[in-house]
Amino acid sequence: MTAIPAPAAITSFKAPRRTLMGPGPSDMHPRVLAALGQPVIGHLDPAFAGMMDELKVLLRYAFQTENALTFAVSGPGSVGMETCFVNLVEPGDKVIVCRNGVFGGRMIENVERCGGVAVVVEDTWGEPVDPQKVADALKANPDTKVVAFVHAETSTGAQSDAAALCALAREAGALSIVDTVTSLGGTPVLVDAWGADAVYSGSQKCLSCAPGLSPVTFSPRAVEKVKSRKKKCQSWFMDLNLVLGYWNAENRTYHHTAPVNSLYALHESLVMLREEGLEAAWVRHRDQHLALKAGLEALGLHFVVREDARLPQLNAVYVPEGVTDAEVRKRLLKDFNLEIGAGLGPLAGKVWRFGLMGHSCHAGNVSLCLSALESVLTDMGYAMP
Amino acid sequence: MTAIPAPAAITSFKAPRRTLMGPGPSDMHPRVLAALGQPVIGHLDPAFAGMMDELKVLLRYAFQTENALTFAVSGPGSVGMETCFVNLVEPGDKVIVCRNGVFGGRMIENVERCGGVAVVVEDTWGEPVDPQKVADALKANPDTKVVAFVHAETSTGAQSDAAALCALAREAGALSIVDTVTSLGGTPVLVDAWGADAVYSGSQKCLSCAPGLSPVTFSPRAVEKVKSRKKKCQSWFMDLNLVLGYWNAENRTYHHTAPVNSLYALHESLVMLREEGLEAAWVRHRDQHLALKAGLEALGLHFVVREDARLPQLNAVYVPEGVTDAEVRKRLLKDFNLEIGAGLGPLAGKVWRFGLMGHSCHAGNVSLCLSALESVLTDMGYAMP
Repeated sequence: MTAIPAPAAITSFKAPRRTLMGPGPSDMHPRVLAALGQPVIGHLDPAFAGMMDELKVLLRYAFQTENALTFAVSGPGSVGMETCFVNLVEPGDKVIVCRNGVFGGRMIENVERCGGVAVVVEDTWGEPVDPQKVADALKANPDTKVVAFVHAETSTGAQSDAAALCALAREAGALSIVDTVTSLGGTPVLVDAWGADAVYSGSQKCLSCAPGLSPVTFSPRAVEKVKSRKKKCQSWFMDLNLVLGYWNAENRTYHHTAPVNSLYALHESLVMLREEGLEAAWVRHRDQHLALKAGLEALGLHFVVREDARLPQLNAVYVPEGVTDAEVRKRLLKDFNLEIGAGLGPLAGKVWRFGLMGHSCHAGNVSLCLSALESVLTDMGYAMP
Repeated sequence: MTAIPAPAAITSFKAPRRTLMGPGPSDMHPRVLAALGQPVIGHLDPAFAGMMDELKVLLRYAFQTENALTFAVSGPGSVGMETCFVNLVEPGDKVIVCRNGVFGGRMIENVERCGGVAVVVEDTWGEPVDPQKVADALKANPDTKVVAFVHAETSTGAQSDAAALCALAREAGALSIVDTVTSLGGTPVLVDAWGADAVYSGSQKCLSCAPGLSPVTFSPRAVEKVKSRKKKCQSWFMDLNLVLGYWNAENRTYHHTAPVNSLYALHESLVMLREEGLEAAWVRHRDQHLALKAGLEALGLHFVVREDARLPQLNAVYVPEGVTDAEVRKRLLKDFNLEIGAGLGPLAGKVWRFGLMGHSCHAGNVSLCLSALESVLTDMGYAMP
């Protein structure tokens, strides 16, 4: 009966032990791994429903919001991003998209695939978004429906002024879509204080959960827009009108089978964030960043992003002259089981990205990283300053 | 700084131990749970890339196909479904959709949201799709681009003749989209022998992996269609032209962060399927179904689906008169930690769905289920025949 024979040589996969100091995923805490590996239960089980309710409360704390519609999308951050766009952008809608790295570019793709019209505000990779340019774009385009920007650009390590950008959108009567994939849990994400309307994140950065989930939150204004759409959302899976019936209803109706185990893990990582406290977590990211920064600069390396816009959890530095980017990363992985990140787009081959995210962000990792890097660079003939 | 205080009372979630005999998820084997709980590694790590290559080989075996484009979508089965539709249906395309349960209805939604025109072939819930009706619909609609149907209707337990339906599509020059969410690993899914073009499944049914992944496979004809689309795919995340660069390229380009741990688990569940052998797994599902069937009929219960179209892994029986559906399920869960499934749509309150999927499908579970059910029914005053 089976025309395609069973493959002979494939056996169980044994994951190597790495230290993850790239742009994510970050190291998962043993407690979160244990939560993930608990036996699966039904996605309509009353015990699971109770956990989902707790998850919403914990996410509201992480996002610093009272938004009722706060939950985890059953997919990676890119699905969280697309969920925001397909629900809030209707064909013909004008959307100001700020691009200062990879993820702004992806937002433009999203707008266009929704039939929207993207007005692009460009900033150099490594720079934060310039609020003045956004103010000018809004003035020139008074019919703008949405302003979209990346709070924490994972491709460069630049942090933009989300409060200022959300305020500009709101003053102009537009909704805001904010990417906090790399910021949530690492630096202040203050959804209500900012007045942000649709905010998405990822599970595998400063929350140090398994990759594959995207926490999201929507303001009442955003929900109103979703409910008053003229045209159905183009995605069945991401349609918030349908998802609402599962995550936000008294009588949960079946929508899709939730990723039960991954949600166990997210719950645990958020319980750990609550135990530490958001502010303490922000301070920890800041402190370890300063330690890493001191060490990297002692090695003669220079940051891509100017000091006042640097994300502590994502440190992009230029690869020094005469050193081959890929070779260094390969040796760090091979000799030290240490993963750091490469550059993307115009920064490919030119920068390294050192992540200090969530559980990966502690003094031991900073020491390991600096000494391993020094050892590899020395071995390759790089002259320290 | 934190305006929203930390929630006080939320602690680690302890999942209850259940026996899962509903429509999925099914019980995960300890080996698969252990694989899931391994430390996370980077999604661009060479070790991970090697595992992804093995995963493709294992999935080709499970699907019985040589299709190069065979991988796991980073989302639940509904995302697998939507991936097939958004890539293969362009605005204005006519799509014949066979509806004999919940998931055919969801396919219609997908077609419409892609701007396609759905021609619906209706069969009663519980009946398999009638190939003659599809032949007639194709004759009446010679401009049909796609024929879509559900091989194994999870909402009723009916299995349709996928070989016949795919052949009809192919003869008419149309592509086929086939839902094998509940069949893969439980009953024969023979993608190449059927000549199917786009086939999706789920991780949490007969593969007994964590919920949240959707194995998919696309024929060369389907890939050709994707590459020659006039209009860009409306979804950035699901666009196969982009996904191809990650799953099917020599130099993997970053697309999204793969759900690393869930993919570990899928790898392990497929290694276990390979160890048992596909044909042995089909026989096991058949044998346990026959044992369950004998027991359910001895209790005086009647199947929804006629014998020759029954899925062994999804047994829908009518709730006997005088018995309250929800009360029985509640007691089974409370007193026996046993989950069975409720009816959906027009069958809500009228049927129970007993799953025998993957690792949940063994003699011990059949015994537990039958004795627990007998005990609860007797206790509620139901008179055995």
